[in-house]
Amino acid sequence: MTKAYASLKQAARLKPLEIERRAVGPNDVQIHIDYCGVCHSDIHMVNNDWGISEYPMVPGHEIVGHVVSVGSDVTKFQEGQRVGVGYFVDSCRTCEPCKAHMEQYCENGFKMTHGSETDDPGGLTFGGYSDAIIVDEGYVLNVPENLDMANAAPLLCAGITAYSPLRNWDVKRGDIVGVIGLGGLGHMGVKMAHAMGAHVVMITTSQGKAVDAKSLGADDVLISTDQAAMAAWAGKFDFLLNTIPVAHDIVPYMSLLKLDATMCLVGIVDELESVHTAPLLFGRRSVAGSLIGGTKEAQEMLDFCGEHNITADIELIKMNEINDAHKRMEKGDVKYRFVIDLKTI
Amino acid sequence: MTKAYASLKQAARLKPLEIERRAVGPNDVQIHIDYCGVCHSDIHMVNNDWGISEYPMVPGHEIVGHVVSVGSDVTKFQEGQRVGVGYFVDSCRTCEPCKAHMEQYCENGFKMTHGSETDDPGGLTFGGYSDAIIVDEGYVLNVPENLDMANAAPLLCAGITAYSPLRNWDVKRGDIVGVIGLGGLGHMGVKMAHAMGAHVVMITTSQGKAVDAKSLGADDVLISTDQAAMAAWAGKFDFLLNTIPVAHDIVPYMSLLKLDATMCLVGIVDELESVHTAPLLFGRRSVAGSLIGGTKEAQEMLDFCGEHNITADIELIKMNEINDAHKRMEKGDVKYRFVIDLKTI
Repeated sequence: MTKAYASLKQAARLKPLEIERRAVGPNDVQIHIDYCGVCHSDIHMVNNDWGISEYPMVPGHEIVGHVVSVGSDVTKFQEGQRVGVGYFVDSCRTCEPCKAHMEQYCENGFKMTHGSETDDPGGLTFGGYSDAIIVDEGYVLNVPENLDMANAAPLLCAGITAYSPLRNWDVKRGDIVGVIGLGGLGHMGVKMAHAMGAHVVMITTSQGKAVDAKSLGADDVLISTDQAAMAAWAGKFDFLLNTIPVAHDIVPYMSLLKLDATMCLVGIVDELESVHTAPLLFGRRSVAGSLIGGTKEAQEMLDFCGEHNITADIELIKMNEINDAHKRMEKGDVKYRFVIDLKTI
Repeated sequence: MTKAYASLKQAARLKPLEIERRAVGPNDVQIHIDYCGVCHSDIHMVNNDWGISEYPMVPGHEIVGHVVSVGSDVTKFQEGQRVGVGYFVDSCRTCEPCKAHMEQYCENGFKMTHGSETDDPGGLTFGGYSDAIIVDEGYVLNVPENLDMANAAPLLCAGITAYSPLRNWDVKRGDIVGVIGLGGLGHMGVKMAHAMGAHVVMITTSQGKAVDAKSLGADDVLISTDQAAMAAWAGKFDFLLNTIPVAHDIVPYMSLLKLDATMCLVGIVDELESVHTAPLLFGRRSVAGSLIGGTKEAQEMLDFCGEHNITADIELIKMNEINDAHKRMEKGDVKYRFVIDLKTI
């Protein structure tokens, strides 16, 4: 064990914290964190909106950095390699989802990158608003050489959260795909669905986002408050990726789907505003949810992004700007992801 | 054209009505109606609960009878044959769903068996609370010889409404299938899922329905108000057929589904009580809807029922008992479907 110091004053709204970092075990990768994306869920966790937060807390699960050292049994990584860590750092490894590398659906509960209990009594995992982390190699990902590291950080959560449902519902060339909401998740969804060959329609309440959406790869923009436009697009969509992070009425969007098509929710863990069943029955439509993505799929996503040169559009901040960043995110004031430069810690 | 008389005093709460019946066209089948099932939606239509009712109205769309005469171009039916008619009697025949014989999802709107406009100005279709109907042969089905006619009537709506989603979501031998709610739809769902080889669990609020459910083919009964039992079944179901006809909270049921599994709503066209997204995201689960079934699938369903000797459990009533029957249905007081004996008209 080594004594380590983490500057968390701004991040966790606490005085500087003495934490004991675990030794690098045989399967561990010790990572120097270069950049960490700021996810909307960090704010929920900091505020304990979901009632699962444990303090002290170091948020951050869009981690990219480079390998400092590896344990004796590590085979996939070596010193200096560019790596990433996402929302979880361990899982049971024995249930069916884990065996299929869909650890996000681990039946025994995955270990979150921040705020989960460790094997040490009273210990907690600490996340990426920090300059170092030690993670089992099974939960570390390789970041392609051609991607800018700071811009790649949001791929580890926003990226995989958009990618996984696009793949699961088999989005392919020629499909008409709607991305609802243009934020961190939505802008990744537009870029990825476009790269998969879909005809991408940005669906937003805001006319002001139309130009941006097209520059990101959207072929069309549909203003959801324009009832004539919504009617014209009714029944046209093969898939809808709904990234709205707050309670809303899903019914107007459901009517956009073709027979047998699905709208997948990725942005909201909350009560929906209202759900009338008519658009489900009349069209055999589905509403589903999807949660981040597993390690195998996340590596596939990173390789896909390397191949198509996809990263997030970001605003790079210093560590001591994090509280302002959280406040601006609550107002939707970011294009499209804050990323912390951990040199500034 | 022939002048015909339909005794609708009780059925439509109107004085006896003079209706003009259309002539038997070249593709028409003239049917003498022997029995007609009483569907919950008849009550909604009589009361104009959905705001789409047209009066005068003759409800009834679970029609069985025998062929009286056929038009010159009819090839599939002949005089004396046992036939059935369900929820619709025509559709556009040109859209993709129609061409796939999924006329229930006709993009131009199918013609309902009762209450839709006819080609004659001001004309309306009249349904099965009557002793005669004329229907294009494309919308007439063959009723297997071994099935009791009165008990077969509810197959034309309750039966196909349960069968279609069980087939669409590929229920097969060994699957664990939950049927939620034991009414007209639910009891058909139990019998059909059982005949498909599934392990069928009846999910009900009522301990009193346990014995009945098992006699219908359920392997287990899960009382949905028993939280320990619900927890024990969490994550176990391959498919849920939700037949509850009133607003309710779907979240406790969603947690019963396996990863990637679907709950299909067939009983409710209304606002759901509340929908929290957590069980959708944590398990990539779907909630879907399904509407009756198409002509091809309905014939397949009738043949399946012939093969497995499946019909509805019914209470046979006289025409003049229909108002009491509607009242009893509103209290859930029927095992499991009223069927009108049209000899009593």
